[in-house]
Amino acid sequence: MTSTDLLQQIEFIKEIDKLKYVFRQTSLLNSERRENDAEHSWHLAMMAIILVDHSNEPIDLLKVLKMLLIHDIVEIDAGDTFLYDTQKDHVNTEEELAAAKRIFGLLPTKQDDELIQLWEEFEAGETPEAQFAKALDRLEPILQNHSNHGGTWKKFDVSYETVIDKKKGIGKGSKELWEYAKSLLEESVEKGDLKKNQLS
Amino acid sequence: MTSTDLLQQIEFIKEIDKLKYVFRQTSLLNSERRENDAEHSWHLAMMAIILVDHSNEPIDLLKVLKMLLIHDIVEIDAGDTFLYDTQKDHVNTEEELAAAKRIFGLLPTKQDDELIQLWEEFEAGETPEAQFAKALDRLEPILQNHSNHGGTWKKFDVSYETVIDKKKGIGKGSKELWEYAKSLLEESVEKGDLKKNQLS
Repeated sequence: MTSTDLLQQIEFIKEIDKLKYVFRQTSLLNSERRENDAEHSWHLAMMAIILVDHSNEPIDLLKVLKMLLIHDIVEIDAGDTFLYDTQKDHVNTEEELAAAKRIFGLLPTKQDDELIQLWEEFEAGETPEAQFAKALDRLEPILQNHSNHGGTWKKFDVSYETVIDKKKGIGKGSKELWEYAKSLLEESVEKGDLKKNQLS
Repeated sequence: MTSTDLLQQIEFIKEIDKLKYVFRQTSLLNSERRENDAEHSWHLAMMAIILVDHSNEPIDLLKVLKMLLIHDIVEIDAGDTFLYDTQKDHVNTEEELAAAKRIFGLLPTKQDDELIQLWEEFEAGETPEAQFAKALDRLEPILQNHSNHGGTWKKFDVSYETVIDKKKGIGKGSKELWEYAKSLLEESVEKGDLKKNQLS
């Protein structure tokens, strides 16, 4: 006989298959095909494994991986909120909290509690693990837009200054990655893929 | 100035974006849309986090996650080998080894060595971590085919006996998951989605 715990776990595992249908605004590298949240989460987890030594502070990689693998699961119900959306704030909305409760709530209580807590820690962005995880979440679209001739920056007419403002949090997780990210933004400005508001 | 290590790491991170274009034979749950390797790797990593307590032996979850996240990267060059392929053996082929050397070789030496070793450990399937990781890799398509009215079993006329033979390794990683998997196979037989060779 299959245990109740296992049946609940399998229900959760089936439910999160839906993350493969949630599309982000940004596209794959050198491509117009938009990335889905499952692919995105995998890529961020790989980035964490590879870039862990660039974290400003020593971090627990297992915790970072868990955070990154689950960080977008709430979007199954709440949808993807675009970073440059001017109508909707990119914060822990009520809609996302309800989604977290419903989806993680499919799991046995102990696991539900652990994942909700990890997700809230990620959203709050205060611990070294959350800051590093968020840095990677902010870095990936820069790699993508940089390779896609401006990508969503151009499509939605986002200025260099706005990108800097929205992305500067990368430095909280990794000063080295933020320096690198800025060099990509400068390159995009030089290539005409990203527009400065003020002449420097 | 960006360090050489970081530039090599970014090259690797860009290269593995291609995993999002490698399609598997099996489809998403209740769907005809085939799954790609990046989504698949994310889903297996989530399964490891959720199902870790069902491992036959105590395991290092961080190691299992790393294995699962990287286990299909060689398919960027070598392509996906279908489990029921009768022409090509589903083992660590020369083509896959060359792929591992090329792709992991983009990384700084220390990381290249670590990932090659992890991938070889996964392929060998002898340690508790590799056995559990492989169990999940074998379980996911059962969930998929079970939900898809037989999916690739029906499409490629694969018998119940062949599935049992190819999947019995699940029990090496987790006896409990293997019992559960067999119950799904029995259900598929009852629904006419999977055919037995011998009448029982």
